[in-house]
Amino acid sequence: MTESAAALAPTATQTAPYTMTDKMKDIVSLCKRRGFVFPASEIYGGINGFWDFGPLGVELKNNVRDLWWKAMVKCPPIGPDGEPVTILGLDSAIIQNPRVWEASGHVGGFADPMTDCRESKKRYRVDHVSVYTTNAAPDACWIAVPSGDDEQDVFKKRLKKLGSKLSADQYTAVGLDKIAVADYGRIIAPDASKPGTLTEPRAFNLLMETSLGAVADADSKAYLRGETAQGIFINFTNVVDSCRGRVPFGIAQIGKAFRNEVNPRNFIFRVREFEQMEMEFFCHPNDAKMWFDFWVGQRKIWWQSLGLSDENQQFHEYPADELIFYSKRLVDVEYRFPFSHPGYGELESIAYRTNYDLIQHQKFSGQKMEYFDPVTNERYIPHVIEPAAGLTRAVLAVLCEAYTVDPSRPSGMYMNFKPIVAPVKAAILPLTAKGDHPVIATKLYMELREKYAVDLDIKQNIGKRYARQDEIGTPYCFTIDDQTVTDGTVTVRHRNTMAQERIALSQIAAFLEVGLKG
Amino acid sequence: MTESAAALAPTATQTAPYTMTDKMKDIVSLCKRRGFVFPASEIYGGINGFWDFGPLGVELKNNVRDLWWKAMVKCPPIGPDGEPVTILGLDSAIIQNPRVWEASGHVGGFADPMTDCRESKKRYRVDHVSVYTTNAAPDACWIAVPSGDDEQDVFKKRLKKLGSKLSADQYTAVGLDKIAVADYGRIIAPDASKPGTLTEPRAFNLLMETSLGAVADADSKAYLRGETAQGIFINFTNVVDSCRGRVPFGIAQIGKAFRNEVNPRNFIFRVREFEQMEMEFFCHPNDAKMWFDFWVGQRKIWWQSLGLSDENQQFHEYPADELIFYSKRLVDVEYRFPFSHPGYGELESIAYRTNYDLIQHQKFSGQKMEYFDPVTNERYIPHVIEPAAGLTRAVLAVLCEAYTVDPSRPSGMYMNFKPIVAPVKAAILPLTAKGDHPVIATKLYMELREKYAVDLDIKQNIGKRYARQDEIGTPYCFTIDDQTVTDGTVTVRHRNTMAQERIALSQIAAFLEVGLKG
Repeated sequence: MTESAAALAPTATQTAPYTMTDKMKDIVSLCKRRGFVFPASEIYGGINGFWDFGPLGVELKNNVRDLWWKAMVKCPPIGPDGEPVTILGLDSAIIQNPRVWEASGHVGGFADPMTDCRESKKRYRVDHVSVYTTNAAPDACWIAVPSGDDEQDVFKKRLKKLGSKLSADQYTAVGLDKIAVADYGRIIAPDASKPGTLTEPRAFNLLMETSLGAVADADSKAYLRGETAQGIFINFTNVVDSCRGRVPFGIAQIGKAFRNEVNPRNFIFRVREFEQMEMEFFCHPNDAKMWFDFWVGQRKIWWQSLGLSDENQQFHEYPADELIFYSKRLVDVEYRFPFSHPGYGELESIAYRTNYDLIQHQKFSGQKMEYFDPVTNERYIPHVIEPAAGLTRAVLAVLCEAYTVDPSRPSGMYMNFKPIVAPVKAAILPLTAKGDHPVIATKLYMELREKYAVDLDIKQNIGKRYARQDEIGTPYCFTIDDQTVTDGTVTVRHRNTMAQERIALSQIAAFLEVGLKG
Repeated sequence: MTESAAALAPTATQTAPYTMTDKMKDIVSLCKRRGFVFPASEIYGGINGFWDFGPLGVELKNNVRDLWWKAMVKCPPIGPDGEPVTILGLDSAIIQNPRVWEASGHVGGFADPMTDCRESKKRYRVDHVSVYTTNAAPDACWIAVPSGDDEQDVFKKRLKKLGSKLSADQYTAVGLDKIAVADYGRIIAPDASKPGTLTEPRAFNLLMETSLGAVADADSKAYLRGETAQGIFINFTNVVDSCRGRVPFGIAQIGKAFRNEVNPRNFIFRVREFEQMEMEFFCHPNDAKMWFDFWVGQRKIWWQSLGLSDENQQFHEYPADELIFYSKRLVDVEYRFPFSHPGYGELESIAYRTNYDLIQHQKFSGQKMEYFDPVTNERYIPHVIEPAAGLTRAVLAVLCEAYTVDPSRPSGMYMNFKPIVAPVKAAILPLTAKGDHPVIATKLYMELREKYAVDLDIKQNIGKRYARQDEIGTPYCFTIDDQTVTDGTVTVRHRNTMAQERIALSQIAAFLEVGLKG
């Protein structure tokens, strides 16, 4: 067993069970050690919520990215009418006119003053909290509850629970926004047990801000996009006009988005800079239900194609009363990550957003967002089905799914990537570093690399090289040895079974053609 | 001629010659009209320096991106020793620890107070300007000149030219940074004719700033990267350790970068958000000269592969005395854009940066950036050859090169893309929209789209459809007509020659295999 593998794999001598926390720790460690994901700015002590993709990580991510682009833009599925649906690609700028984010509701809704509870870690909008104040006793605490119809009842229960000597009618309700910060020390937050845990209120906006031009003032303020979707909505008429988009059709884009998360966590799951893969499908309001069901079905097929097991995946539909007012249906695609186990974390949201976004942009820009149907002569604002997936999270799910503990092999584990996502498809390993072996190996590498991501690995003993390929999830290893020189055959080692067989050099292309499908 | 083409193409009735300015305007107009590039946030009046790539633009850009990635990472060239060189991919975060930009010199150097001249539009560092002041006459202007050894001579010449009644010895030189803003009204800027044109000094930094976390203060400040290169340098040891990078080897990445350009201009040439393709090649100092020449040669081959003509391209080497202190050689790859004509604009810089960047990060981070050579037992900080190309600019060069005026065809022009960069490789056009034609066309489309970007275009008369394909630069059109139903042949129309021939449906795959090479 290699040194690194010993640190990594559970062994027979371990007595404590291998927990999901252990697994997550091992995945993070493998990702750094083998060049999938590094902490960003690591030499400077890192930066909270940012990660860099290393040589293998970028290939894995590109593979997932390209599979989505193929499934959406290049070869979109056959629609309910038997014809292939039309989806057009887009790549809009990260920074847009700030009005975009006013129309979308990202600025405004999130910009209200907020306060954090240091005890419960919960965050409250200051104007959504009522504080029951009293001066009946100088040391009596003030009790905060969420504002609402039932707040008096909630207050009374809390008062009793906290064992106060005062009665409820000795208290007066005041909005938190009316209370001086100097008095915050007396307040017990809604989910706290002690007073003085609420932080000073501050405006908080999940969008990251920047400023453009030479002078940083209110006019120069701009935002890094919080989602790729708005770039699609604002280009709806441009795409219809330039590429004769005919409803129903979709617009798809992949790109970076930024959110000023308060508490980034769980490796690359909740981060401040991430990649999204979003598609907005524009359709007639009468057909929206049909298309929603269609896209839920299609997305299921796609996620399965990455190799995520049914056991770790679920589609969760929200009940109607939990939806935001403009949303008619919402299905989350969820994955059971080691850190969420036995619960799930979100990979994608498939939302029926009605025509809310286009109407908002029509209102804020004054530009018509209507579509004119040349067949029916109908003029209307299309409804939208939005499958919005996280590329960064998709990569994390694929990494977690692939990580397979196997104490029987030197590496102690292997990455069980499906060939279509594996960053390296095959390794070419000359048994010795001198003589004919590397010459034959290099020739094979030069032939295969035109079509496949292959790794030519010449140094170290063969066991260590197999172990490394197991750790990076390479489906096949071809070993060139003395017999290759004599009869032109190589050893193929299969990653999952570790079984070995010999095939002719001339058969390798055909072997990979079949072996790398799926 | 279609309506849009009439507006676009020069016709026989035009008397004024078709200028480079006309050509650039036509390219910008075509890009919007056909879905290559839209002004960002157009419905909100745009945003200066930002552009969105439409359905065809994103495919064109992806093609250039993938060609670079293939030439660098997947199939890097054969090195001077006859072996393929090793280059590893990377995708680092846009936002890094702000110390990265202190080490790189992006923060500090650019953050000095600057002043703009409203007349000449020039910008000056305040501490680089000397002002010759006088109080000999209350209405006498003060004369600013760039600080330097020859500033007295320059001042005297300007004094004479401005026709002052005072003599040179009635003036006293003072640094602009010592002059109160209230007195700026008296100063004639270095390239201005009148006083009072200099703006109040302000700190100006080409890096866009943002802030992270809930409180926006000095500790929360971060920057959007101004180049992708630094993400590579800070990961040097991570990549060496995780992927056994052995010098000489390269690290390559493609990604967005941001610069707060004062004056964005020339379409997508000088913008505030753009994409770079940068590779840092780490080598032994003794081999740096050889590798520099090697990469200049390789980059020439690559740019030619995009279809840029020799006539519009030049490689410009800077003389040693124009280089920054740490740089030993610098070759710019330049393209003659319509807006720069007869001059050139920069596409790529190939720089021999010595070990400056790694040393800077070693100094600022306290982390060793040394490489240990296991063969020679030598420990050293590698030198770097950096071919740093602009992806956004590459796309613009390809667009400009392809734009070909041709009054003989209905579209008045066509896009002469090389097949490898063309966003659509072939169009499939059923002659009529009903009956057998669209059925055969759809079947052909479904077969071809698995391998090629193909367009199935059913509506409109065939002439208009050919015109559209000419405008988007599709190399081949396959038309399905009655004869196709009878004998299984289609018409192939060649974009550049407009020549037509008939081939069998069964031959199309083989036809494209050959026709799309190069």
